[in-house]
Amino acid sequence: MAIITIIGAGVMGAALSVPLSDNGHEVRLVGTPLDTAIIQSCLANGYHPKLRRQLPAQNQYFSHEALGQAMQGANVVVIGVNSRGVHWAAEAIGPHLAAGQVLLMITKGLESGPQHEIIILPDVLHSRLPAPARDSVYYAAIGGPSIAGELAAKRHTSVVFVSRDASILPMLQQLFATPYYHIWTSTDMLGVELCVALKNPYAMAVGLAAGVLEQSRPDEAKAQNHNYAAAIFAQGLAEMSYLVQKMGGNPQTIFSLPGAGDLYVTTQGGRNSRMGRLLGMGKVFSDAVEEMPGETVEGVDAVIALMPAIEGQIAAGQLSPEALPLLLTLHKIITRNSPAEFEFKRFFATLGFAQA
Amino acid sequence: MAIITIIGAGVMGAALSVPLSDNGHEVRLVGTPLDTAIIQSCLANGYHPKLRRQLPAQNQYFSHEALGQAMQGANVVVIGVNSRGVHWAAEAIGPHLAAGQVLLMITKGLESGPQHEIIILPDVLHSRLPAPARDSVYYAAIGGPSIAGELAAKRHTSVVFVSRDASILPMLQQLFATPYYHIWTSTDMLGVELCVALKNPYAMAVGLAAGVLEQSRPDEAKAQNHNYAAAIFAQGLAEMSYLVQKMGGNPQTIFSLPGAGDLYVTTQGGRNSRMGRLLGMGKVFSDAVEEMPGETVEGVDAVIALMPAIEGQIAAGQLSPEALPLLLTLHKIITRNSPAEFEFKRFFATLGFAQA
Repeated sequence: MAIITIIGAGVMGAALSVPLSDNGHEVRLVGTPLDTAIIQSCLANGYHPKLRRQLPAQNQYFSHEALGQAMQGANVVVIGVNSRGVHWAAEAIGPHLAAGQVLLMITKGLESGPQHEIIILPDVLHSRLPAPARDSVYYAAIGGPSIAGELAAKRHTSVVFVSRDASILPMLQQLFATPYYHIWTSTDMLGVELCVALKNPYAMAVGLAAGVLEQSRPDEAKAQNHNYAAAIFAQGLAEMSYLVQKMGGNPQTIFSLPGAGDLYVTTQGGRNSRMGRLLGMGKVFSDAVEEMPGETVEGVDAVIALMPAIEGQIAAGQLSPEALPLLLTLHKIITRNSPAEFEFKRFFATLGFAQA
Repeated sequence: MAIITIIGAGVMGAALSVPLSDNGHEVRLVGTPLDTAIIQSCLANGYHPKLRRQLPAQNQYFSHEALGQAMQGANVVVIGVNSRGVHWAAEAIGPHLAAGQVLLMITKGLESGPQHEIIILPDVLHSRLPAPARDSVYYAAIGGPSIAGELAAKRHTSVVFVSRDASILPMLQQLFATPYYHIWTSTDMLGVELCVALKNPYAMAVGLAAGVLEQSRPDEAKAQNHNYAAAIFAQGLAEMSYLVQKMGGNPQTIFSLPGAGDLYVTTQGGRNSRMGRLLGMGKVFSDAVEEMPGETVEGVDAVIALMPAIEGQIAAGQLSPEALPLLLTLHKIITRNSPAEFEFKRFFATLGFAQA
């Protein structure tokens, strides 16, 4: 039996308690300052209001004030805050790290560095933890198609656990894997973390197809708009492939669970798709945002966080803008209220198709 | 202006008349023996009963008895029969070929050859046409996400035109491309034709997720089954990638329109998805077939056509069964009424993930 402390009581953090509990581990779920109502509900009756489900009876619940106590003796500390909470999480856990602990990121996101480098979140976390403790712990992350409510319902869910330290992966797999939670392992930390963050803006772009259809004139034969969505899906995957390979990631990551699989699942619903639909209906971004008050759209955050690095690398000749028409268009849509229209002819420009 | 003869008056053949007509070409739509009712309707009032739409007023219609007349002077002959009709089509057009004509395949499918080789349909067609005329014409094909009804509605549709003869591709692109029909060109005939045929069984497999959900016990929080679908989507893409690369195709084909894009669009509905849903609900294949009377499920046909070659190549050590668990399971489901269950743990075995 191991002790797993999950920081962040959102849907994904809470859902992970289900396989962990099935495996007999001690699970400590710690609310962030944003999770007060959730932790209160869990303490009162074990019910998670966002998952709309009873959590395992053995779960222990902590408020963030008791973080030190919750981390004591933990073998694995899961970082499950939202993408805007990583700096808070680093500050909060820093004083309580114990040598040999594994920090397992489920938060998705990217940052741009001062030299226009793209920084993945495990490295952001590392840079903000106190030395020398930060070098006495291990860093890992989870990528792949995993809707939290489905994992909590024990539906078959297939993911990749990734770490630069291959030595810890068998232990992590053994702790978390169940007959419904299938785990592969990889050391391509960069490729996995890029894929899981990039899938959000590209899923948002796929979501535009539904909005474009809704604002089209009625069609006698009720034609849908899947061809439009599929072209964007393919271009999104091509751009993910380009960026991951340019950064030194492994192409296999893109074409399996963390890339294609996670992009697919993210197009099946959720906030990124809803934002895409609003944009596809012809609303400018600033109006669309007002229709989703208080909601974090990770695809939007990712574009804004990533773009300084992308633009810097384009200016330095390290990236080709011809390879990224979808991402660059999304950036204009989000920052300049540009119309949500794609120039399909600019897609696939760097894929080696014969030019006709 | 060019003359384009389309053989097969099904939805895709008929839909292509829309961009061709917009470009001012002479379109001659020829019904196969299965298309008699369609051609009668088109001749009577220009209405296509399966597309549920008026076709362009300039279209000309022919029954298969008038095929010779319809092919006379044609610059391009589109082969739009169903996958079981390619032998018929070869016999029918053989006597009427003219040197320099382009035969453009939109039919999808594969055959197994006597040496356990996988034969793509343009090569099946060539082998069944009379010498020497068969070597005086060009062979090309279309791949990519293209639901016929959406193309006919002039929705944005993005495809790849492919031929081993790069010289004819600019001409084809110019004939067919419109502001809504976006065309890239490629010489990877093998990769494109493998992808467009393989996407059907893999989309059928993704479709199982919906059936599995329907026959699951009700869930308090209404969890869906997208994680299951996404893992199969990713494994399907991995198996397509494996087969295309083993056969000498270009990986770029898989990760753009003909592979990922077409697989995506095929999972959004249609007969392959419906068959998958029935199987996922727990019906054995022979019962599921009875619920879709008279309907050709291309994913089923593709598995049956392909498997002798796959099994022969596995026996010869040319292919690894570990790389193809999804395809091999589908084959058992279809030919042995095996239960439609996948061993997720066998997925991604050859992708280079660290084994834990």
